[in-house]
Amino acid sequence: MNQSERITPRTLKGFRDYPPEVMIPRERLIDTARRVYCSYGFSPIDTPALEYLEILVGKGGEETDKQLYKFQDHGGRSVGLRFDLTVPLARFAAQHINRLGTPLKHYHIATVWRGENTQRGRYREFMQCDFDTIGTLSTAADIETALVIHDLLCAIGFSEFTIRINNRMVLTGLLERLDLADQATTVLRALDKLSKIGPDRVAEEMIATAKATEEQARQILRLSKISGTHDQVLKQIEPLVAQSATGAAGVTKLKEVVDGVQAAGIPQQRVVLDVSIARGLDYYTGTVFETFLDTLPEIGSICSGGRYDDLAELYTKRKLPGVGASLGLDRLLAAMEELGMVEKVATSAEVFIPYFDPDRLHDYLKLAAAIRAAGIDVELFPEPKKLGQQLKYADRRGHRIALIAGPDEFNTATCQVKNLATATQQDVPMEPDAASIIAAVKEILQQHPK
Amino acid sequence: MNQSERITPRTLKGFRDYPPEVMIPRERLIDTARRVYCSYGFSPIDTPALEYLEILVGKGGEETDKQLYKFQDHGGRSVGLRFDLTVPLARFAAQHINRLGTPLKHYHIATVWRGENTQRGRYREFMQCDFDTIGTLSTAADIETALVIHDLLCAIGFSEFTIRINNRMVLTGLLERLDLADQATTVLRALDKLSKIGPDRVAEEMIATAKATEEQARQILRLSKISGTHDQVLKQIEPLVAQSATGAAGVTKLKEVVDGVQAAGIPQQRVVLDVSIARGLDYYTGTVFETFLDTLPEIGSICSGGRYDDLAELYTKRKLPGVGASLGLDRLLAAMEELGMVEKVATSAEVFIPYFDPDRLHDYLKLAAAIRAAGIDVELFPEPKKLGQQLKYADRRGHRIALIAGPDEFNTATCQVKNLATATQQDVPMEPDAASIIAAVKEILQQHPK
Repeated sequence: MNQSERITPRTLKGFRDYPPEVMIPRERLIDTARRVYCSYGFSPIDTPALEYLEILVGKGGEETDKQLYKFQDHGGRSVGLRFDLTVPLARFAAQHINRLGTPLKHYHIATVWRGENTQRGRYREFMQCDFDTIGTLSTAADIETALVIHDLLCAIGFSEFTIRINNRMVLTGLLERLDLADQATTVLRALDKLSKIGPDRVAEEMIATAKATEEQARQILRLSKISGTHDQVLKQIEPLVAQSATGAAGVTKLKEVVDGVQAAGIPQQRVVLDVSIARGLDYYTGTVFETFLDTLPEIGSICSGGRYDDLAELYTKRKLPGVGASLGLDRLLAAMEELGMVEKVATSAEVFIPYFDPDRLHDYLKLAAAIRAAGIDVELFPEPKKLGQQLKYADRRGHRIALIAGPDEFNTATCQVKNLATATQQDVPMEPDAASIIAAVKEILQQHPK
Repeated sequence: MNQSERITPRTLKGFRDYPPEVMIPRERLIDTARRVYCSYGFSPIDTPALEYLEILVGKGGEETDKQLYKFQDHGGRSVGLRFDLTVPLARFAAQHINRLGTPLKHYHIATVWRGENTQRGRYREFMQCDFDTIGTLSTAADIETALVIHDLLCAIGFSEFTIRINNRMVLTGLLERLDLADQATTVLRALDKLSKIGPDRVAEEMIATAKATEEQARQILRLSKISGTHDQVLKQIEPLVAQSATGAAGVTKLKEVVDGVQAAGIPQQRVVLDVSIARGLDYYTGTVFETFLDTLPEIGSICSGGRYDDLAELYTKRKLPGVGASLGLDRLLAAMEELGMVEKVATSAEVFIPYFDPDRLHDYLKLAAAIRAAGIDVELFPEPKKLGQQLKYADRRGHRIALIAGPDEFNTATCQVKNLATATQQDVPMEPDAASIIAAVKEILQQHPK
């Protein structure tokens, strides 16, 4: 082929390849999320990447509509790539609820696409990792959502994190008392920016967009100063919403959630009542959740969600209330990398066998098969290159142990078991079933767990 | 919302939702594939769903070009959704090979899209499940490919299957001897249809499209009648290709592969030399693989692949030979369903706790937490509905054990442990750490493993 006919290999702007050292931690994180979701009885679902455009359009606001990847398919249908998993979930629930029944306890881990401005460091293709309980108004589901978030963070390896919980009805109650109920959306949208832009600018925005007075803005922002134990916080909120039935109901729900979470054994300090969190999205109506890493709060919430009254009203007359949350996979991976929690390996196979003696391929194949039969992942180098080159490859890939056998070793029926991390080695008898080698490998792996 | 404003919830033609009872076996199969790939040191990669159109177009033939989902993105670029994983792998390898080095041992499990004719029962969105060793000419990699296929089928749960192996060079050698070398592609394309359309129609096609004489077609088709042990087959092939250096090299390679596979401990009867398999795809140049279920051969090969000389010649001048195979996920799942190997459950949680006594939510939450801490997945129903309704839900979802505690049980500090499959139950003491309940649950799960 002529050089000039070649196509430059490249990815589209905002898209990226995932080489092994990026994919391995991603897959581990996804596996952990799946394991925790399953441990609470959530089941996996998936939906098509492509949907009828009318299903997607107008659901995420003007900005999202602009970012939609949309086109005509071969049959002339207007179609689009999903931009989140909530809209497909709503469509899915509306379509299948009669057959599946309630409650639906689902998780959905899948790719979504948005033609975002990449200058903000965002990708146009990313993964979402949602779980939802649909078809129940019971607070038990809200409690469980907090428990899942908690167990998920623990299972990933975090011990210092805070789940912040609020209830939209508390905010609604306050706004009713302040005569600002009709401005709820704009007020909450401003309040949602509190941690990013600070109280002064939030107040300015409330005055500008929600026509709040300075005093009203001040009253709303007082919420963010309420802190203390759950009981202390609840006591401070009660008078603020006392005249509003909605507000009082919100306080009751909030108390039920934190009491339930505590009953399930979650340490008190990991759950904070924060009556200033609003979650910008319009469809939350009850409990809302945000989750912050105590050592890295500035990256924002890594797992957020809440309760909604009616998931699928655009697609069905059947009212589908529910509660759920979404793990911010990419944000979390970035945080884990910053905290040194991500092991940089290009392979998950612990053991490496160099193809040392060109005449002994069958022996290497047998040795590899024996190690593998013991449940240990093992890679055999495919070519009889120089040993040094092969060990350099093993080092680059991140194998932990090399099993080296050349002519000398085969003559004496031994094998060098080399710990690549410590560069120490031992001679081990090579039996047909490789029992001694397997024992030596297991000992090293136990001494130096990942 | 007005009925008339509602959007009918539906998926596009050729696309489908994956509810839990479909997703759970899919995820298990994918997990098995990943586990086996990893056990040989293959590492995961992924690439974007969207690529520059010029990367994709013209790579899969005219038919594939027509099926491409293509459009202009927000920046006016011509883009397309990937239609397979081989083209993205080639682009990926060309782009990153200098940093990653050889050999690359990768697996790639991802969704692809083709605007196929759905009348053939095909979906327009499906998953591929590939693994490849790139950057080596060594037969060790061909041997390993067969071993991975073997271990994969065993790990999925099959014991009766046959891996059919051939080498394209053997066919090339025969065609050289018959003076048909310049018609190789058309001859092999016809030969590839042998199991589908039978020898007579293959001969007709060879005569029509490859300008073969009847005698030439007869000679080629004689290949498909060669059978027996590996040694018997090799002995019959040798004279057919004797005058061709390529053919002789092919026979040597073929022998190396089957000898290596046998040395690694694979039962002889699972590997068959079948010199009539060609694999239609033009880019295979050496070893080719097909895999058939002995009890369901008519569904065709469920895992196919082979060796190629130059994976990425369209994107780089660096020659990248390699070998790999692809598991036919959807075909295999259909087969497993037909063979009764797919458990129909909508949850992977074994244990179900009905929310029986409305006043005891905290006790249920504690019990669930204790069971979960013992490593057992457990679902708590979110609402205190009638017990019968809740147990019906558990039955529909496929839970295996229900832990029933109502007012009577709480008064006597016991719990009914109910085996939902046998409809038998026992009263078990309910301690704060739930030790007796956990023991009873584990006993049932061990007696009736999945």
